Amino acid sequence: MERIVMKFGGAALASTEHIQDVAKKVIAEKESGFDIVVVTTAMRGTSKELAKMACNLSDNASKRELDALLSTSSQLSSALVAIALQEEGYDAVSLTGWQAGIQTDVVYGNARIDVIEAIRIEEYLTQGKIVVVAGEQGIGNSRNITTLGKGGAETTALAIAAALEAERVDIYTNVDGVYTADPSQIAGAQKVKEISYDEMLELSNLGSQILHPRAVEIAKKFQIPVIIRSSEKDTEGTLLKEEVEMEKNLIVRGVAYESDVIRLTVGYDAYSNASLADMFTILAENRINVDIIVQAIIDGLKPTVSFTILKEEFADALRVLEDSKVSLGFSFADFEIGLAKVSIIGSGMASNPGVAARMFDRLRREDIPVKMVSTSEIKVSVVVPQDEMIRAATALHDEFNLEQALYI
Amino acid sequence: MERIVMKFGGAALASTEHIQDVAKKVIAEKESGFDIVVVTTAMRGTSKELAKMACNLSDNASKRELDALLSTSSQLSSALVAIALQEEGYDAVSLTGWQAGIQTDVVYGNARIDVIEAIRIEEYLTQGKIVVVAGEQGIGNSRNITTLGKGGAETTALAIAAALEAERVDIYTNVDGVYTADPSQIAGAQKVKEISYDEMLELSNLGSQILHPRAVEIAKKFQIPVIIRSSEKDTEGTLLKEEVEMEKNLIVRGVAYESDVIRLTVGYDAYSNASLADMFTILAENRINVDIIVQAIIDGLKPTVSFTILKEEFADALRVLEDSKVSLGFSFADFEIGLAKVSIIGSGMASNPGVAARMFDRLRREDIPVKMVSTSEIKVSVVVPQDEMIRAATALHDEFNLEQALYI
Repeated sequence: MERIVMKFGGAALASTEHIQDVAKKVIAEKESGFDIVVVTTAMRGTSKELAKMACNLSDNASKRELDALLSTSSQLSSALVAIALQEEGYDAVSLTGWQAGIQTDVVYGNARIDVIEAIRIEEYLTQGKIVVVAGEQGIGNSRNITTLGKGGAETTALAIAAALEAERVDIYTNVDGVYTADPSQIAGAQKVKEISYDEMLELSNLGSQILHPRAVEIAKKFQIPVIIRSSEKDTEGTLLKEEVEMEKNLIVRGVAYESDVIRLTVGYDAYSNASLADMFTILAENRINVDIIVQAIIDGLKPTVSFTILKEEFADALRVLEDSKVSLGFSFADFEIGLAKVSIIGSGMASNPGVAARMFDRLRREDIPVKMVSTSEIKVSVVVPQDEMIRAATALHDEFNLEQALYI
Repeated sequence: MERIVMKFGGAALASTEHIQDVAKKVIAEKESGFDIVVVTTAMRGTSKELAKMACNLSDNASKRELDALLSTSSQLSSALVAIALQEEGYDAVSLTGWQAGIQTDVVYGNARIDVIEAIRIEEYLTQGKIVVVAGEQGIGNSRNITTLGKGGAETTALAIAAALEAERVDIYTNVDGVYTADPSQIAGAQKVKEISYDEMLELSNLGSQILHPRAVEIAKKFQIPVIIRSSEKDTEGTLLKEEVEMEKNLIVRGVAYESDVIRLTVGYDAYSNASLADMFTILAENRINVDIIVQAIIDGLKPTVSFTILKEEFADALRVLEDSKVSLGFSFADFEIGLAKVSIIGSGMASNPGVAARMFDRLRREDIPVKMVSTSEIKVSVVVPQDEMIRAATALHDEFNLEQALYI
């Protein structure tokens, strides 16, 4: 039988009434003839409550214990969803991360899935059961419980879909699809019917909070179609897949932005490729996500490298740099806070030169200073003052005629 | 190094402030030179909250899912205790039931510990860590999470102590020791300094809610001293051990009682030992605790057997009997509710005949009807109307001069 994986976010699981709705959605798919795996996040609020209790006890709780603590919340929601399904007369069984065979590395709080040994899930599906997996968690080599950090449940859903060769993954979330820009902030933002993995990858990396890049990467790698849809409204959603039809004149498909960006700059007495590699290796080992990297080697000036990180990783990044100052051999470090990143994304960009120029021109006309620039085949990102973020995004949405993107 | 196991109940873990107190108690023992295993129950209130959520979804949730759900609460408290210990600078690690190697049968909600594979606990202790085990839970053959039901955390504490050959188990609870009777109800009840395993076993079986009989049985089997003491007051507590010094004139050491007892009577057309054995086997297989059993075979009357069960198991017991009516071959079943059991306990009883007679005489003088009687070497129990329970216990406490039991 064909299989689908359905992932529900915290808002969809906010109360037992919400959980009953989730059960109804699951049953509808089961009745259409699919084998179903449900992946749950924590119920809204529970993780925060647990974190608060830990905070009351320690400002510096060990990450292993935090994971043992926080993993209880998706275990809890998965059991409740199974109970709701059983109440409707369906055979359902909940599994924790370790029971579902989700093996991870041991980076507590931000673990990566190494492999999913889906034997147990397979077995239950064969028996006709609906399997409800606690998302956001797994088990490390040491038989310790790990949590997967941001986007963990989405990643779990996609990884399970890959392991089971599922037909499709449905992501039920608090938005009803992917928009050309954030509709709550940018007037005229339009929902898109389809979007490619690559575009979505850029969008997710750029702070469109809908789907975590790790999840999109798995979807792309295994070519799993993903539907992003509302857990509240019964609307069509956005289909994420490999190839998307090119709309006429739509070089840019969306505008994304991300606030609370910090620029770090590190200066050296002399240039060395080795020390640069060392620095980004150490940052990566400490799971600090570095985004835009800009390096300028100018004769007569000391070499510097600048990169952006998110505010929440700032303290960690400083600590890592401080600890490794001697081995990394840099002579000074400097930072700028209060920045934001604004980006335009579109597969059509690659074959349309001049898109970046048009972007810079518009920002210049709007008097918005551009602090850093980064480009790829299908996106251009600029770092601007945070105060100007929404104005910049609105201007670019207008510049590329996205309010006319009538996809649906 | 010598090891002790410290068990904390829900009241001791009611808030993060309470958990900080727990950490202090643990550290004090660690600093006296012991290796420590802490066993936690759920924080006060959390299990009830989870059960309520399950209830909102279903009146008839599967026991497997309830166990997956409820086990989160002691996992949560164990992680918080570990965090509190770390905050004080001690190396601590929390373990779930399955991580601690607590293997059980698969009777969800009321599982029994089969064996504890304490390798991992041993390893951590060797490394100088304080190990915090989530009580009340384990793992069955099928790699499903089980919970141990009433007294689960105490049983876990004793079973771990047995596996580790621990010096002692400290039970921190909401009473400060074992009394000759419930001090909140019986005027003149006295705390005893020491009590034997056998006496405690009778007491626990008789509804003195302090220590579950399963835990006492393990303590007796492995001769592990247990101290029952208050988690709030720093008083001496009661020491549970094999041999207890005989106080002069104290034939009876305590009076216990238990409300919400139900008498079930089953009648047969003809007497058969086989059907009796079958019935109690089936009840036991369904984990229904049968207490007093009375059978009377009287010529000319149809044979009947009466037994008592607790109110909460009444519905289950009726269902089991109904399902097995044909195979058990009984012709009618009858029950009486609103009963209570009152008992006197004391090792001295065996060598002092006439204790039961003195008990019945006093109850007769008090005009309290006795519905059923059961005796053992060291106790006599009577079933009386629930309304008369406290009056009966008070009278017996007086009859055997327990208010003069100045142990401390």
